[in-house]
Amino acid sequence: MSEHVVVIGAVALGPKAACRYKRIRQDARVTLIDRDEIFSYGGCGIPYFVSGDVSEANQLRTTAFHMVRDEPFFNDIKGVEVLSSTEATKIDRENKQVHITNLKTGEKSVLDYDQLVIGTGATPRKLGLPGEELENVFYVGNMHDAEKIKEGITKGQYGKAVVVGAGFIGLEMAEAFSDMWGIETTVVEIFDQILPRMCSPVLAKMGQKHMEEEGVSFKLGQTVSRIEGDGKVERVITSDGEVEADIVIISAGVIPNDKLARECGLECSERGGIMVDETMRTTDPLIFSGGDCAIIKNAVDGSPLFLPMGSMANRQGRVIGGNLAGRKETFPAAAGSWCVKIFERAMSGTGMSLGAAKQAGFDAISVMLIMADRAHFYPEKDMMTLEMVVDKATRRVLGIQGISAGGDALVGRINAVAAIMKYQPTIEDVSNLEVAYSPPFASAMDVLNAIANMADNAINGMNHGHGPDIFAEYWDNRESGEYCFLDVREKADAEPFLEKYPEHWHNIPQGEIPKRYEELPKDKKLVLVCNTGGRSYEAQIMLDALGFEEVHNTQGGMAVIKAYGVDI
Amino acid sequence: MSEHVVVIGAVALGPKAACRYKRIRQDARVTLIDRDEIFSYGGCGIPYFVSGDVSEANQLRTTAFHMVRDEPFFNDIKGVEVLSSTEATKIDRENKQVHITNLKTGEKSVLDYDQLVIGTGATPRKLGLPGEELENVFYVGNMHDAEKIKEGITKGQYGKAVVVGAGFIGLEMAEAFSDMWGIETTVVEIFDQILPRMCSPVLAKMGQKHMEEEGVSFKLGQTVSRIEGDGKVERVITSDGEVEADIVIISAGVIPNDKLARECGLECSERGGIMVDETMRTTDPLIFSGGDCAIIKNAVDGSPLFLPMGSMANRQGRVIGGNLAGRKETFPAAAGSWCVKIFERAMSGTGMSLGAAKQAGFDAISVMLIMADRAHFYPEKDMMTLEMVVDKATRRVLGIQGISAGGDALVGRINAVAAIMKYQPTIEDVSNLEVAYSPPFASAMDVLNAIANMADNAINGMNHGHGPDIFAEYWDNRESGEYCFLDVREKADAEPFLEKYPEHWHNIPQGEIPKRYEELPKDKKLVLVCNTGGRSYEAQIMLDALGFEEVHNTQGGMAVIKAYGVDI
Repeated sequence: MSEHVVVIGAVALGPKAACRYKRIRQDARVTLIDRDEIFSYGGCGIPYFVSGDVSEANQLRTTAFHMVRDEPFFNDIKGVEVLSSTEATKIDRENKQVHITNLKTGEKSVLDYDQLVIGTGATPRKLGLPGEELENVFYVGNMHDAEKIKEGITKGQYGKAVVVGAGFIGLEMAEAFSDMWGIETTVVEIFDQILPRMCSPVLAKMGQKHMEEEGVSFKLGQTVSRIEGDGKVERVITSDGEVEADIVIISAGVIPNDKLARECGLECSERGGIMVDETMRTTDPLIFSGGDCAIIKNAVDGSPLFLPMGSMANRQGRVIGGNLAGRKETFPAAAGSWCVKIFERAMSGTGMSLGAAKQAGFDAISVMLIMADRAHFYPEKDMMTLEMVVDKATRRVLGIQGISAGGDALVGRINAVAAIMKYQPTIEDVSNLEVAYSPPFASAMDVLNAIANMADNAINGMNHGHGPDIFAEYWDNRESGEYCFLDVREKADAEPFLEKYPEHWHNIPQGEIPKRYEELPKDKKLVLVCNTGGRSYEAQIMLDALGFEEVHNTQGGMAVIKAYGVDI
Repeated sequence: MSEHVVVIGAVALGPKAACRYKRIRQDARVTLIDRDEIFSYGGCGIPYFVSGDVSEANQLRTTAFHMVRDEPFFNDIKGVEVLSSTEATKIDRENKQVHITNLKTGEKSVLDYDQLVIGTGATPRKLGLPGEELENVFYVGNMHDAEKIKEGITKGQYGKAVVVGAGFIGLEMAEAFSDMWGIETTVVEIFDQILPRMCSPVLAKMGQKHMEEEGVSFKLGQTVSRIEGDGKVERVITSDGEVEADIVIISAGVIPNDKLARECGLECSERGGIMVDETMRTTDPLIFSGGDCAIIKNAVDGSPLFLPMGSMANRQGRVIGGNLAGRKETFPAAAGSWCVKIFERAMSGTGMSLGAAKQAGFDAISVMLIMADRAHFYPEKDMMTLEMVVDKATRRVLGIQGISAGGDALVGRINAVAAIMKYQPTIEDVSNLEVAYSPPFASAMDVLNAIANMADNAINGMNHGHGPDIFAEYWDNRESGEYCFLDVREKADAEPFLEKYPEHWHNIPQGEIPKRYEELPKDKKLVLVCNTGGRSYEAQIMLDALGFEEVHNTQGGMAVIKAYGVDI
């Protein structure tokens, strides 16, 4: 008799594993179970369905050639049997059986399995707020939520929206509401930055500022205490006041659905999630897991990693499909790459942010660079801001994050670093990373090479400076007399600032420093500024060599100061 | 006395090495020599200056902050002494001296050095053609050539152009002439494809077809025997006829300027170029070299690699600068990444093409995939064609090349593979490569992962097929009766072909194969086709399992067939 593989969960990992296995083993029997009647969809596309970029919900569950991935599709095209509206209630490992209930008829039955895949995914984290049950309070958990949200929007029911949580989905939903439908949108976030843990507060603020310019409001560092309204939601009460709302989206992360696994004795993480090895096997070698319900390994430091992303589910699903068929495939680790479109900008990163690296015990620093994303003389280009996180002792690159209007160019750079993360790259590896060169696509010394060079200079003590956050602190304290703000650009560039701040702003173009350095005070901190940090870095080296002891280079220069929103 | 470093050649590598060294060693003396009076320019930008994208020649030699990199710039800002219009005629290693001649005054003198850098670059290969000396025959070797070409163009002197050589510069110049100035342009190439050695004939043909659609003509597999005209060029005589021309650009590759090094006994390659180790030292530890005059190491197989690109020069220059100052920096190898913009498409690659891999002794195959460069349901996207070259025995990835309208997206994918080339990646490394996922930027199973999966399936024998070149052969022989062309798309897609080719075109949608396979002949080669190769691959697996012995999947499907220009 042919082998029977049962797959629980049919959103991303499950269908991939099932179909891959079936392609290798045409004679096998594969059963795919899902609680829902809508399955095998691209959940990450929901914000684009809400925005209208994707016009029909079904587009998220069609193939590239416009076939809906429904029961007949899996049965006829893929040779995989589907049991939808069916819940797996128990895994009996001893008898190799899955207990299932048909959610429509209530009928219970038992499926024998030879091998099993648990792809139960994750569920939006409930905040347990008073008023959560009010009409028009949504989690973005599945296609049903998505269709209800979209329906209300197209009927014009919502004038004001509150999004709780400034993670990927929160920001994408805020953009969808605000950009396409003109809904007045406020994002409430418990951390004091958007994309907490993903990037530094500095990059986060740049992203936030851009979204604010596009009309989204933020309430950061605030908790939601309750949601109020008469039947329907009317307002959200936060720790710092209240916000009117006709619709509330709660996107406060997801929790892995590991109950089935836990109850049948498979090892799970204390913090949730099914433990798997690099073959994606659980502690029972006949049972595989992956995707949003599993815990994988962090390529940076080997620690457990929960990375609920459709890409992980697809790649891991393929590995499981191969291993079900007796192949020896592995998914060793992931660096935690991410990207998100926010209006006209993209943000992206891989590995650890500075905060995450410090929390993981690294003696880490970061450097920030802003530079054209292709030859500076090429007419069509965008300025890309990158921040690289490195370990001081080992010179290892722990992560890189960035923001740019040129999304593909940014994500491409991040992907190149992500690709080498598992090899534990040092600064030199990125310094020499072979970005293909032609003026329309890169600089000869590409922005990616340049930020590694900058990290090298920072670790060697050659480039000692600060980002826009510290500059802002200095600038706010300019009346203290502790600082001399030295603009090393040509006079024409410095002129507006000299006029506006005659007492605090000084100008010596970099090339004149050897002749004019005696104009500078020796008893103040010299805070150097230029357009993007290149000339101020060279000026800093000159001034160091001339015996000035307190020279501070503003990394990223006026470009970053402006993007960060310093009041100057 | 402070150390004296002499740098010969001031285009890309030289200035980088000089300035980097000077930044680390503020007290050192650095002398930068160049034969020209225009130096430190971005030579790769010349086609964009010719096209008009870059309006002023000086833009190619200004910094990002609009300073011209001339003598005063290097002297005042960089602290580097420049001797322009000065030729180094001899290196006396015993006495550590460089003999120089001032090309303006004829004055000869001698410079003592403690360490020396040879950054003499490369010179366009002369073809020695009769008529090469005619007016309006140009090599694109330096800014003087560029300015002369541009001057004639802006004066409207050229109605017809011939470009000899279909490498990067040739194609870029052809685009510049044709796109921006409406000059009737013909490219003559001795090989029978554009970008010879860089990519497969199939990808090359796709690029060529696009350029033809934009108005450029090609004469491939033809040599130029002579150039004719009365004072000025009037026509180019090729092995296959003649082409009228008011201007001829000869871009037939470059030859490393290794004469100085060779004459002073430094090891050079037989085929030209100065041998360096991974610290960029020549066989004399006091003399460094890099950039277009040096031979580095190929990351794929360790063989010598001549890679004349501005990016190489810049990165190597920085390594040299550090090592001059006593640091221990390395430039271990390069994979040979490249990218080129041709009108509305980009082409890019890294590592070896299939032809190059076979020539290097690998038992290699390639697979070709066409797929959306982001989520297929996301509205703004481009179709990306990728070809991956793998070694059958070791499953190593030897190279990847591609073409797409989405240039940044394509180059980003290529860069990610380039980043891991030095780690000798296997198919699995690319299959699991962590492309950051969000629908506006990637697919959950990204095109890059998908082509690795395809290579895996091909090597395992699961996906047995052919590209559009072989399909074209089969199709041309359709009257032979050997083939059954089976379209496995839904009937509506197949209909136009069924009508046009009722005798040769057959249609069974993939999902109906289990019921209808008996309609198919068992004695013919089944040539399977769908839109992009996904369904035909699955159909092929089904038909294999049903006992058909000659099933051939058309990789890339109709999309690639069309891009390749098959007459169907």
